[in-house]
Amino acid sequence: MSGLKPFRVIKQEIRVLGIDDGKFLPHTKGDVLVVGVVFRGGCFIDGIMHTKIAIDGLDATEKIASMIIGSPHRRQLRLVMLSGVTFGGFNIVDIKKLNSITELPVLVLTRDKPDLDAIHSALKNLTATEKRWQIILAAGEIYEVKNKGSKLYMELAGLSLADAQTILELTSTRSSFPEPLRVAHLIASGITS
Amino acid sequence: MSGLKPFRVIKQEIRVLGIDDGKFLPHTKGDVLVVGVVFRGGCFIDGIMHTKIAIDGLDATEKIASMIIGSPHRRQLRLVMLSGVTFGGFNIVDIKKLNSITELPVLVLTRDKPDLDAIHSALKNLTATEKRWQIILAAGEIYEVKNKGSKLYMELAGLSLADAQTILELTSTRSSFPEPLRVAHLIASGITS
Repeated sequence: MSGLKPFRVIKQEIRVLGIDDGKFLPHTKGDVLVVGVVFRGGCFIDGIMHTKIAIDGLDATEKIASMIIGSPHRRQLRLVMLSGVTFGGFNIVDIKKLNSITELPVLVLTRDKPDLDAIHSALKNLTATEKRWQIILAAGEIYEVKNKGSKLYMELAGLSLADAQTILELTSTRSSFPEPLRVAHLIASGITS
Repeated sequence: MSGLKPFRVIKQEIRVLGIDDGKFLPHTKGDVLVVGVVFRGGCFIDGIMHTKIAIDGLDATEKIASMIIGSPHRRQLRLVMLSGVTFGGFNIVDIKKLNSITELPVLVLTRDKPDLDAIHSALKNLTATEKRWQIILAAGEIYEVKNKGSKLYMELAGLSLADAQTILELTSTRSSFPEPLRVAHLIASGITS
């Protein structure tokens, strides 16, 4: 993995940015809200940022990177967590690119194992099928992990599996899903529903 | 105070709804986002709701009441906290009415003492001056309280000063301002700036 930097130390209150998208009507044109929540470990919220991306568009990586880079929280952040790599339908985040632009490690987490065959089929109904597929593949290996008794699936860019597991445990204070992502989901869906 | 119901018991994880408004361009026409955050005590977020009110309009009480009544969290809520009574400029919440419609006690909190003379003057530049002024007055007595070393100002509808102070202390886990309002502010302003 290029650009992998082991954490020297993982603080209890490590600043983690959790990112999730809001609700939208699939197969429509338009934008969807993407919310970033700055969490201190699994404890409390330090800030909120947001951007908008095109439904089924190709701008998720760039828009999310710009949101992070333009934020006053940027220098305090140590990790970016994403709820999957597909946002706003099939606007897919290139996690290697996000890692290299922001210089922050990226941890992608899902409750279900990404079904690559189903994704590949769905992409055939969209423009830029091959480009989107390559971004999906660029996320690399899918790791199955156990967290508080639940199976979860991770993809990583710029951090080791051991560090990812440590941070996952540290930030999962209320459920088997880490607080930055649990709360990003509550906010993004709460604001758009 | 009519409808004052003392709390039989105030649980550590009492569900409190904190409400704040987003950013907007003053003196313009349009809507402003109002966010409600369901907090368990001063601990963690249980949910998010939102509504939109007119800038300098007269619909804040009704829109916020509808947001609460229409929420799946309604039955778990024990208290509503507001960051002041003016939202979206001078769209003023009638806290007695909000208390009677929602059947929930309302606690208004500000860092600065409301300057009634300045508010009265400002209202003269708006429609429905007298109506707005009566809503301001309807909030009743302004209590000065100390919380974690900071002076704060409260107005109350449907709960006692003693209960209000207990809940204020209980929910102020990160600063001298209660978490439901601190986080409502972060979200509402973070989504609209």
